[in-house]
Amino acid sequence: MNGNYIAVDWGSTHLRAWLYRDGQCVDSLQQPLGVSRLTEQTPRQVFEKYIQPWRDAQDIPVIMAGMIGSDAGWHTVPYLPCPVTLHEIGAQLFEIAPQVWIVPGLKTAHSVMRGEETQLIGAMQLAPADCYVMPGTHSKWVQIYEGSVSGFTTAMTGELHHLLMNHSLIGKGLPEQHDNDAAFNTGLQSGLDSPSLVSRLFEARASRVLGDLPPECVGEWLSGLLIGAEVAAMSHELAVKHVTLVGNELLCRRYRQALAKANIASQEIAGDAAFQQGIRSIIDARS
Amino acid sequence: MNGNYIAVDWGSTHLRAWLYRDGQCVDSLQQPLGVSRLTEQTPRQVFEKYIQPWRDAQDIPVIMAGMIGSDAGWHTVPYLPCPVTLHEIGAQLFEIAPQVWIVPGLKTAHSVMRGEETQLIGAMQLAPADCYVMPGTHSKWVQIYEGSVSGFTTAMTGELHHLLMNHSLIGKGLPEQHDNDAAFNTGLQSGLDSPSLVSRLFEARASRVLGDLPPECVGEWLSGLLIGAEVAAMSHELAVKHVTLVGNELLCRRYRQALAKANIASQEIAGDAAFQQGIRSIIDARS
Repeated sequence: MNGNYIAVDWGSTHLRAWLYRDGQCVDSLQQPLGVSRLTEQTPRQVFEKYIQPWRDAQDIPVIMAGMIGSDAGWHTVPYLPCPVTLHEIGAQLFEIAPQVWIVPGLKTAHSVMRGEETQLIGAMQLAPADCYVMPGTHSKWVQIYEGSVSGFTTAMTGELHHLLMNHSLIGKGLPEQHDNDAAFNTGLQSGLDSPSLVSRLFEARASRVLGDLPPECVGEWLSGLLIGAEVAAMSHELAVKHVTLVGNELLCRRYRQALAKANIASQEIAGDAAFQQGIRSIIDARS
Repeated sequence: MNGNYIAVDWGSTHLRAWLYRDGQCVDSLQQPLGVSRLTEQTPRQVFEKYIQPWRDAQDIPVIMAGMIGSDAGWHTVPYLPCPVTLHEIGAQLFEIAPQVWIVPGLKTAHSVMRGEETQLIGAMQLAPADCYVMPGTHSKWVQIYEGSVSGFTTAMTGELHHLLMNHSLIGKGLPEQHDNDAAFNTGLQSGLDSPSLVSRLFEARASRVLGDLPPECVGEWLSGLLIGAEVAAMSHELAVKHVTLVGNELLCRRYRQALAKANIASQEIAGDAAFQQGIRSIIDARS
């Protein structure tokens, strides 16, 4: 292969793609056509409509990662079991169509990932560390040992926040939510002090009823509580002192505050940059 | 007062009432008319329709407890702050209509209860203990010190189970669920071992994807995990060795298993029996 290729991040909610010519990104697209949103079209039809036109007559390689490789996607690509080296991941791509490849996800006895493995390949080059924290709907804490992904754990932090705000008594009847550092920090300290969560979640409801927490700040308090609990529980379980954060800027900022309070040093790279570098590395390794 | 009275347990989802004559229960009713379900009728109208006919010409006293005393109910009755003696609760009833009283709920700095205080008054007579565990949508762990409710904590265990099974990725696309002791016990051990929950919840999803957990047993595994985490976290926080369980039989059985595995001795009384005895005590104290 050379510097001409297409990188595709195809997750549950979105399809995002980048066209590279001679190693330079010359075009990109983003569509709300994640695999969980496809009702009228198959992934192959979406591919034909949005990606194939970039390929012209010349069949340049396409590398795809994310839920497109799940049972809800184009084809179920088996997970690679940890421990696994990053070289092995790139060497076991699944060819779903001529020169169209899906990166396999990873599994441990207790967790699975699809898409993050590609960010990880990039992150290990851009910001090497023994532990990567990838905040999100399902946050991942990934351990590296001697160049291999030795294991990882998933925290449902983002999904729990969504559930509690949208479907539970905690979120019932709340006004529009506002950013509020003080509420976030109060929740954060609660979560760091009591990572069990069990006894703390209901405080969001009680504080509101008792008037201690302004109704428009419940989301911030809860975000702090959940992130604090995640950082306290995971850093204790993994005994880490230094991590690299991989994700979007706003979310990473929240985790940076939590990590600092827990005395864990952190550096940070953008999730998109990590993904792009990951695909680039896979392409390079195949050349 | 004497042995003629009406006891009303009026919660979020149901209205239940019992008519007593000469200390004997001679009639009862249950309607799906909890305060959160009243759209067309006010609580007063429901009262007039279902309870008032029992009173005839003679205005026998009615004692009500539960969410009927909340801002979503008939009238917001202020919470009594802990520590509080059970005598104080019965002495501070709120008269919402002639001879119609609402039992006040209790609050701490971090939690609130309405309805459980009445079960508690009964439970303290039927099965005295220093700690009461009241399993449910919002489980309560109540501490007693020298005859007073010194404090209590709420665990959102039941609500979390409902949220995760009905609105999260964990429950998505599951078949009808079946009772399964093995799955419950596996989850229970996980929760007892890792009360942080954060890193364990996602196992429900991963195990299913990886084929380790039969899809029809996810609810049981999750019930075990959440109850195990609650019992581990709360018993550690409160340093208890013996508790009285107050609740319905099926739920108490699950908690009994969890408590036994955590080396906590337990006795048990039915929630309804505790409630009846609680109202009876309030009536007796007022005579």
